[in-house]
Formats: sequence, C-alpha cells, structure tokens
Amino acid sequence: MTIDQQLTYLRKGMAEIIREEDLKERLVQSAKTGRPLRVKAGFDPTAPDLHLGHTVLLRKMKHFQDLGHTVIFLIGDMTGRIGDPTGRNVTRPPLDQAAIDRNAETYKHQVFKILDPEKTEIRFNSHWLAPLKWEDVIRLTSKYTVARILERDDFAKRLKDGVAISMHELMYPLAQGYDSVALEADVEMGGTDQKFNLLVGRELQRDYGQQPQIVATVPILEGLDGVNKMSKSLGNYIGITEPPEVMFRKVMQVSDDLMWRYYELLTDKSMEEIAAMRASMHPMEAKIALGRSVVADFHSAGDADRAAEVFNSVVRRGEIPQDIPSVPLPEEVCGDGGIRVDKLLARIGLAPSVSEAVRRIKARAVEINGQKHTEIWLKDPPAELLIQVGKLWRKVV
Amino acid sequence: MTIDQQLTYLRKGMAEIIREEDLKERLVQSAKTGRPLRVKAGFDPTAPDLHLGHTVLLRKMKHFQDLGHTVIFLIGDMTGRIGDPTGRNVTRPPLDQAAIDRNAETYKHQVFKILDPEKTEIRFNSHWLAPLKWEDVIRLTSKYTVARILERDDFAKRLKDGVAISMHELMYPLAQGYDSVALEADVEMGGTDQKFNLLVGRELQRDYGQQPQIVATVPILEGLDGVNKMSKSLGNYIGITEPPEVMFRKVMQVSDDLMWRYYELLTDKSMEEIAAMRASMHPMEAKIALGRSVVADFHSAGDADRAAEVFNSVVRRGEIPQDIPSVPLPEEVCGDGGIRVDKLLARIGLAPSVSEAVRRIKARAVEINGQKHTEIWLKDPPAELLIQVGKLWRKVV
Repeated sequence: MTIDQQLTYLRKGMAEIIREEDLKERLVQSAKTGRPLRVKAGFDPTAPDLHLGHTVLLRKMKHFQDLGHTVIFLIGDMTGRIGDPTGRNVTRPPLDQAAIDRNAETYKHQVFKILDPEKTEIRFNSHWLAPLKWEDVIRLTSKYTVARILERDDFAKRLKDGVAISMHELMYPLAQGYDSVALEADVEMGGTDQKFNLLVGRELQRDYGQQPQIVATVPILEGLDGVNKMSKSLGNYIGITEPPEVMFRKVMQVSDDLMWRYYELLTDKSMEEIAAMRASMHPMEAKIALGRSVVADFHSAGDADRAAEVFNSVVRRGEIPQDIPSVPLPEEVCGDGGIRVDKLLARIGLAPSVSEAVRRIKARAVEINGQKHTEIWLKDPPAELLIQVGKLWRKVV
Repeated sequence: MTIDQQLTYLRKGMAEIIREEDLKERLVQSAKTGRPLRVKAGFDPTAPDLHLGHTVLLRKMKHFQDLGHTVIFLIGDMTGRIGDPTGRNVTRPPLDQAAIDRNAETYKHQVFKILDPEKTEIRFNSHWLAPLKWEDVIRLTSKYTVARILERDDFAKRLKDGVAISMHELMYPLAQGYDSVALEADVEMGGTDQKFNLLVGRELQRDYGQQPQIVATVPILEGLDGVNKMSKSLGNYIGITEPPEVMFRKVMQVSDDLMWRYYELLTDKSMEEIAAMRASMHPMEAKIALGRSVVADFHSAGDADRAAEVFNSVVRRGEIPQDIPSVPLPEEVCGDGGIRVDKLLARIGLAPSVSEAVRRIKARAVEINGQKHTEIWLKDPPAELLIQVGKLWRKVV
C-alpha cells in the first residue's frame, strides 16, 4: 500500500485523528527506517467482559498491525491495585496480583480474537507508576496547569454543579499521559470520550522531550436499540463470548441504518465496498452477511454457517415473537450434567408437570436456540436459552 | 499557672486560635497525662536570615515551651531538594544535602536565641515525604477535594485572573498537612497568611484517624515604616544578627503607636503590663526600654546597655539627620585586617584625600556607629556603618 492508501485504511471508522498530517509523516518515517510505530490503548483493570462496543477500538488497533505496526495493549492495573483510595466504595477493593494476572489472561483470551499476538505487547502501568516517588510526582504535576486540567468536560461540569471532585481524580489524566511517556507511544487510541486524556499524553511527551503522540479516537458504538451506547447494563449489547446463534440473532434485530454503521465499525470492509453493497444488496441479505461476519470473527466460519441455518429455520416457520418472556435460570434445575430440561420446562410454565415435560421432549416438540432438543439433560448450556414448545416461548438467562 | 492563666498567656500576641476550646481541652489532657503537646511550625529551606518579623512566631512557640511543651521546628527541605520542578526558575536550583545541613545550622544558631534547645525538635519533612510512592500520593490526594483546595485565596484569585497555577502547587498544602500527620502535631502555628494550609492539616489528621490539630496564627509584623509587612527587600526590617547599636537605633525610629504593637509581639510582657506602662511611662522612656529588650534578646543585657549609651551620646549632641546618604562599601578598602578607614573616608566624600582623612582620624573627629574611631583599621566591621565626620554623615552598607 502507498502511504495515502495506508492513511485511507486507517482513517476508516475513526472519529478523529490529531493530526492527520503528523500521522502521515510518522508513517513515512516508519517506512523509511523500518521501525514499526508503537500504537497504545489503555484498558480497565477490572474483570473484563468485552462486547462489540469494545471491538471498534480493537479493530482499529488491528488495522495498524495489518500495516506492520506494534500495538501496546496497556492494562491500567495501578488503579486496580489501589482500589478506591477514598475507602468509601466497598465494591472497588484493591486487586491482588493473582486477580490482576487472572484478568489479564481473560483479556488476552478475548482480545486475541481480533489482535495479532505476534504484534502485541501486553503492558501494565504499575511497572512505571508504582516506583514513582514524591519528587517524581511533583515533577510530573509541575508540567500541567490547573486551568487546563479543569477544562476536561466532566471536571468543568462537576465543578460548576458543585459535585465534589477528589484531588486524586486530577492525577489520573496525568498518569495516563505519563504512560505514553514511559511507553514512547507514537499513537494513542481511545473512544471519543477519552480525547482529553489522550491529548494530555501528547503535551507531556513534549515536556519530557519526546515527539508528541498522534491521538486517534474511535466513535462510541450504539447498542442494538440504535439509540444508547452499547453497554452491558442497558442489555443492548452483543458479548464477544456469546454463543453463535445468540450473536447472529441479535445482529438480525438491528435496524437497516444501524446495520450499515455496524458494517463500518465492526468489519474490515472498506468504505467503497460498503457503498457497493448498499447499492446492490437487499438489506436482509446484507444483514445476514453481517451476522455471519460477526460470528466468524469470534467463533469460526463453520459456526457462522450453522448460526445462519438455525436462524433461517426459525424464520421459515414464522417470525420469533417480539415479546418473549425472559426468566432467570432456576438454580435447582442445574446439576453436574448441565441443565435438567424436563424440570426446567415445568418450572418456567412450558409444561404443566415434569412428566408432561418429558412427554413433550420425547415427542420432539421442544426447540432450544432453534434446534430440536430430545434429551432430558442439556450439556454445556450456553448463557442464554431461547426455548420454544408449540406456540409458547421463553428466554432463559 | 492554672489552665485559664495558661490560655491567657498563649492568647497574647495570637491572631486566631482554631479552636480555643479545643486548645483548652488539650492543655487539660496534657496536664493530666504529663504528655507535653507537640507544637509544630514550618520554615522555608532556603538560606535563612531572620528578622524580627519571624520572631513573632518563634516567641509564641517559646511560650508553649515556657509551659513545658515541645516545639517542632520543621524545615521544609523536600521543596528545597526538588528546587523549581518546572525548571524555569534558574534562581531556585535543587539544594544538595550539604547546603541543607548548612542552612539548618544557620537556622539553629538564630532560632535558639529565642527557643529552648532542650524542648525543640528540629525535623526535616523529606524524611517522610521522599519515600512516598505513587500509591501513597493517590491516597493522600483522595482525601481532599478540588473545590476546597481552590478556595485558598491566592489560588481562587489566580484562577479568576487567568494566571497559571501549576498542578504541583496544589500538592504543597497537602504535603504540609501530611507533615502534621507524620509529626502527630497537637498544634500548628504560622502567620495569618498560612491559615488555609494549617487548616488542611487539621482535616487530613482527621482523615488519618488522628485528633485534629489546633491551628494558631500570629499576625504579620509591620516593618519600621508601620505600613508594610516587615521584609528584607523593603528595607524596613531589623535583622536578628544586626549589631546592637543598629538594632537599637532602628527601634528608636518607629512611631509611638507601632512601639506598643512591637511590645505586644516582640516581648514577653503581658497585656496588663503593657497597659500599665502605657498609662505611666513617657513614650521615649518606653521606646528606650523596648530597644534594650530587643538588643538583650539577640545579644546580651550588657550590649543593650552599651547600645543605649551610644544612642544617648548621639542624641545629646543633637538628632541624627533623617536624610543620611547611603553608600555601598567600596571593595578596595577591605583587607584582611578589616576596613581601611582612611581610604574609606576619602572614597565616600568624608575627606578630600587619604592624608586628610588620616589627620581627621588622629584628631578624634571621626565617629563610627556612635563611637569615636581613632585607628586606621576597623577590625570585625559590622554589616552597617553610620559614620560622622563633623557635620557630614554617611551610611555605609
């Protein structure tokens, strides 16, 4: 690829690049010297459970890898080690080293579905933050003014509204900026909501005699509702460890407009390719292709085929009702062998009794996640079950 | 003394005690347990050269010692070790350990003219600040809100006026507060301009599970002009290492009103005693007594007598003119033996030539600091010379 083609490739799906001409120059330098760029992004140290919203950033990091650059997956463990320094938030106790290592492993397992492990450095910021002494902290804080830090939107708003900001909160943007100094980052990426913090890194690097990093932000992904930010707590998400059929079905729920947005942010297709599809394909066809692409990314092409078939077979027999009651999985139906489906059906109102439930299972009248289920036990149950018995549906979560 | 008498003794010359009832309670506790109170005050680590303005605070510290308590003379050397962290102020390079030790010795030499060395701890805050790690700093900063720290008058004003405040400046009040935690101070003293910082210590101690210190402020002393704060750069000061005659003469310059203020802040006399003097003594008599008291504090009773005599003898021959020209000491008249007075007189216009100067010295026509000078050399010259030859006067500095 020429430098301009590289820029086009990187620009797709980005919200903002500060500054694009600097990135171009840095790409030229890298091509000349053969030194890969160091592309950093920071991640929360608490137990990770990624959804597609997180993959927007990971995918753009991967695009840098596609061009031969190094990605630094930075786990902000220093924050986790401290926990809540005010001691008021009991749900944020300090994490010990074992918990941090465990979380890092879970992260790796998830992010290497997108990132290339060969071109990824996993780093922990406690490595350089923990040894900082009072003297170093004073030097670090002397590089930034109070007025500038208070320009950050949420600080400015809270100060104006009289909502308390603890002094230590002002330290975090500086710490994040110092991470860039320690890592000698060429590029730092993050969501648009991180822009302020990323710019701090740019300024601190200059103060520490380094070339200031390029700041590249990605948009915040809308959830399945097309309105709110994708988030676990809003329930409008697709988790990257969800089963193929669930992922596929969720993709099929989104509006046509949102589908094209997802194409931009959740696939490697170029803007030209997307425009061509938009001009030539039926939306339902395009949506099925998107569903397959998402499943293939986090499972396999075979899983994608199967998920599409399951969905088709359900669709063929008529639409899945929109208002399926959602019920929690009763604990007493779980055992070492998985889930006792007969007991489950009786408990959630899909059969009047356990013996009637057994009869219906044997009569091949029960479908789970789009497939006939004829056993009493369901082994290795997925996180979510969509169960149909005749005209009755239940979602078990 | 009863507790109430102790309170009266301590209250004299104080600007504010926060809170007086707490101090009373702490005095009662101390009397009961026999544990002396720990009374802290912080001092600048740069080369000390104290004047009477500084002694207002030292004297109140001494009054705590008079009641059996321990004074902690805290040298804020951590700041000195760092120097100017922004690197912009070349006149504030970091101090090395030797320089800090030298300054501490100079301090001791000066402050022990007032404080009782037996009841004084000299401490350096680098002892507990230097080992603080990032984690400790986050914990410390989490104890205080941004809004509260920005309430400090100078911060609020600078922020409003758009004058830059570096983030590290916000750290200093917290460091000072943390000093109180580390020292487990019962009382912290300072000038009224330090009130904000002293209160921070009070709050931090509470957060660290200690009884909050009592904050006791002393007024800022007016200089000889009676208008501005006493300061070296304004030239309206009496240095505590100045020669007896200079000190005495400077005290005699002040207005009668300012004299009574000085009685309150620069002597151990009680408010009743001062009121009695005011009712019964002629102001000139009172001023002479004040001059003797100041000289005796920093030199000796004998020096005070001599200084008073010198002043009297000058006064007897008529007032010292108000507009004596002040000239710098020419380097070329200084030698190993002190100052060559004959050459000096010729250089500063008190004699038309060196030989004429010698003649005047021999003729006993020359007075230096109120005393006949009949030698060619002046050994161990004081910092300031007031020279009279006939009707001509010069101040040599």
